[in-house]
Amino acid sequence: MKKIINNPSAVVEDMLKGIEIANPDVIYDKEGVVIARKNKTEKVGLVSGGGSGHEPAHAGYVGYGMLDAAVSGNVFASPSPDRVLKGIELANSGKGVLLIIKCYAGDLMNFEIAEEMARDFEGIEVDHVIVKDDVAVADSEEGTGRRGICGTVFVHKCAGAKAEQGAELAEVKRVAQKTIDNVRSFGISLTPCTIPAVGKAGFTVPEGQMEVGMGIHGEAGIEQTEIKSSREIAELMVEKILADKDYSDSEVAVMVNGLGGTPLMELYILAGDVNDVLNEKGLKPVKWYVGNYMTAIEMAGASLSLLKLDDELKELLLSPANTAALKEA
Amino acid sequence: MKKIINNPSAVVEDMLKGIEIANPDVIYDKEGVVIARKNKTEKVGLVSGGGSGHEPAHAGYVGYGMLDAAVSGNVFASPSPDRVLKGIELANSGKGVLLIIKCYAGDLMNFEIAEEMARDFEGIEVDHVIVKDDVAVADSEEGTGRRGICGTVFVHKCAGAKAEQGAELAEVKRVAQKTIDNVRSFGISLTPCTIPAVGKAGFTVPEGQMEVGMGIHGEAGIEQTEIKSSREIAELMVEKILADKDYSDSEVAVMVNGLGGTPLMELYILAGDVNDVLNEKGLKPVKWYVGNYMTAIEMAGASLSLLKLDDELKELLLSPANTAALKEA
Repeated sequence: MKKIINNPSAVVEDMLKGIEIANPDVIYDKEGVVIARKNKTEKVGLVSGGGSGHEPAHAGYVGYGMLDAAVSGNVFASPSPDRVLKGIELANSGKGVLLIIKCYAGDLMNFEIAEEMARDFEGIEVDHVIVKDDVAVADSEEGTGRRGICGTVFVHKCAGAKAEQGAELAEVKRVAQKTIDNVRSFGISLTPCTIPAVGKAGFTVPEGQMEVGMGIHGEAGIEQTEIKSSREIAELMVEKILADKDYSDSEVAVMVNGLGGTPLMELYILAGDVNDVLNEKGLKPVKWYVGNYMTAIEMAGASLSLLKLDDELKELLLSPANTAALKEA
Repeated sequence: MKKIINNPSAVVEDMLKGIEIANPDVIYDKEGVVIARKNKTEKVGLVSGGGSGHEPAHAGYVGYGMLDAAVSGNVFASPSPDRVLKGIELANSGKGVLLIIKCYAGDLMNFEIAEEMARDFEGIEVDHVIVKDDVAVADSEEGTGRRGICGTVFVHKCAGAKAEQGAELAEVKRVAQKTIDNVRSFGISLTPCTIPAVGKAGFTVPEGQMEVGMGIHGEAGIEQTEIKSSREIAELMVEKILADKDYSDSEVAVMVNGLGGTPLMELYILAGDVNDVLNEKGLKPVKWYVGNYMTAIEMAGASLSLLKLDDELKELLLSPANTAALKEA
């Protein structure tokens, strides 16, 4: 394991300390392991989070126009209900709090327990949405179903803009759910990643091979294949997403997301190919995000997220935001 | 080699195509292999660039408040004089052009030839500054001397802000040189990197070892040592920089830069340790940059850049900028 760290068991706390130092607009609440906005305004509070190792998600999205608090678990491990409760308290300004939960069993359980605790014991109005954008996993009414991955950033952005406009909780939830209904993602990886406290990779991707449809914690994908060209990867990603949702003739926002170890050069090459494929299929990309938005520690690979836009979502997406990881003028 | 690419010999062109698609504020001039601002205003033009593989440098810094044009060579190879000349032409609005050159033999030669061509044949007023911030290399009056690395981004920012204010070429050059005089950097790497057209790494860093003082093209460093802790790396970086320049009692801007393959988690951990070390030494960090600002393809590792601030540099650093890779509200 080659990492710039101190104590492998304290990477989350050490990282959050650095985030607080680097970003003057946030505070690090050590008790809750929460990054929250320093200056609270009266608005619906937005809370997200989950396991660590996906940076800049989620602490990097705390700030004007996006989240009010991000709750961190250990690396790839869900935060406990008491941490989420602390996040809710820090985000609450009296207008209610919306939880944006990525669809994993641990997150669902812990966030929903915290929601009940906040409601029952503290009288805070809390509601939630569940993001499940990864089309590599079949959606299902049973079990946990489809995973939430990088499309979650669009939910933070659109719901965050709505909350910033002063909308009520039900309206912010409606926008969050509408964003979820209109975003799909698909990822591939070239290498595994190593949880610091474990010290070695939890799986392998053989030389010359790539994993198709892998999750952001290294969950197994659909298949391992020979490494494809950027153009072929773009085709595969777009086809998988379009097989799940109709984007015909739509304007779309496009996120080409690196998983942590892939340089920007490759992400831009992939973006060029994704653009070609989208245009051939009649979609109209109007807004691009190319970079590391939701990672899997140092995994090499990329995911594509497509958000189908209407006038409302487009206006919210392009509204001002000022966070460490996403700014909109 | 595991990369998301098409033709290994066309990665620069394919990447620049993606950059143009993703960023509506720039155009990609294929003849010059230049990324330039789409909307020109009457101001001193700023041109930088060099070999590719350092993304987001330099094309990511083209935009309001920073560069007007970024000229790309092949991966780790200097752009030819005719490319730089095209960059000068695209950046020129009649108020002159400043070239910000990183100190490498090829860049010095090609940028200075282009400067002469622009001046002699096209009557464009052109001047230049040379960035040499890497304290791993001894400065010298002879030969090429000290390398330019990530501190260059501070030069783009401060000189860019001055140019945006309407200053004349001599004033913009003065600010650029003042920034250069006040910035020092030092880097370490944990892994090598692979030039796509070569297909294998040009050097090795053995398991358990790190390279200290390595350049952003894999130039050999001062030594190979066992991988140190983040705290030890922070001490080493700060000590190397402070041995070269006196920052006593100064406010400083701090850039903790990833080399492409290092996840944000580790950069924030390192930032926390750098902050501790700086405070112990009496320096006052007032502005932080943590992320991938000037990379070496997919190299794992990090560099630290410290900019000593006075009122003028601080005001310019905090002035508005709106580029793909650096935004300031």
